[in-house]
Amino acid sequence: MRTTTTREHIVEAALALVADRGFTATSVDDIASAAGVAKGSVFYNFGSKSALFEAIITEGVGRLTVALRGATVGLHGRDALDALVTELLGQIRSHPDFAKLMVAETFRTGRSWQDSIRLVREEAMGAFAAVVADTWPHRDATLTAAALFGATLLAGLEWLVFQPERTLDDVRAAVLATVH
Amino acid sequence: MRTTTTREHIVEAALALVADRGFTATSVDDIASAAGVAKGSVFYNFGSKSALFEAIITEGVGRLTVALRGATVGLHGRDALDALVTELLGQIRSHPDFAKLMVAETFRTGRSWQDSIRLVREEAMGAFAAVVADTWPHRDATLTAAALFGATLLAGLEWLVFQPERTLDDVRAAVLATVH
Repeated sequence: MRTTTTREHIVEAALALVADRGFTATSVDDIASAAGVAKGSVFYNFGSKSALFEAIITEGVGRLTVALRGATVGLHGRDALDALVTELLGQIRSHPDFAKLMVAETFRTGRSWQDSIRLVREEAMGAFAAVVADTWPHRDATLTAAALFGATLLAGLEWLVFQPERTLDDVRAAVLATVH
Repeated sequence: MRTTTTREHIVEAALALVADRGFTATSVDDIASAAGVAKGSVFYNFGSKSALFEAIITEGVGRLTVALRGATVGLHGRDALDALVTELLGQIRSHPDFAKLMVAETFRTGRSWQDSIRLVREEAMGAFAAVVADTWPHRDATLTAAALFGATLLAGLEWLVFQPERTLDDVRAAVLATVH
């Protein structure tokens, strides 16, 4: 129980710092201080800063993918697309730092955690690609999934960062009007 | 002439390094070495690493905005949207490092160059917002512009980073099929 909680505190603190400042500018000292734990606890739980970052990405993408796949169970076509857009916006609202990190790091190629980053594309965007393949079999599933994911993600971040007074329904309506 | 060339070399070198590694992980020594200039020349031309970064963003967004606005002169509705998507994909292909940097940094809030970053949103996305306002006056121009920009940008980066064998027309067709 205690280990899980400490681990979660560290992940949350690291995520907030890295989303704001970037990876290199965030030290393990900063993370430990923000999490209210000893520096040794970060290394004990994760081994290294890079491994901590990989854990953040792996856990965050895993959570997002489960949510996206779960949202579309039994749905097809536009209903499935609506459910994906709504769920992704809900996840961006619930985990804004992870959303910022995902958009910032997905297309970086010089990071040591490049393999973890591929997860975003293959798993989270993959949930969109599955719906595209099911709904519009003549379209290019991967490129279309990237376009749908990008439309939702950037509209969601515009909402969070610049227009927090808007509702999820406002943003959902704008995205669905654009991609339908 | 010489000063312009040196300045351009430095901008190109810095852009490639920052797009790949991130800002903090890129030193002025790295930039000078990649540009083939003395470290003092970086400071002489830009003053500081942050000022260099601001110049990169300001110049890149300016170039992109001029290209997007130019592409839509005299066009309205779907023709204007087609022209924007095609031009943005062409710019991503011509300036891939700038495209990566733009997506990586637009939604960071802890950077010293936050004001420069706002330019991406207000100027480059603004070209999309102008077309939206002209074409669909009942839609939310800013959220719709973010969705259109995001769809094009993420499909364009998917193309550049993961599927470089595809053509601009493939990617354009996928984006336009998604947003029409």
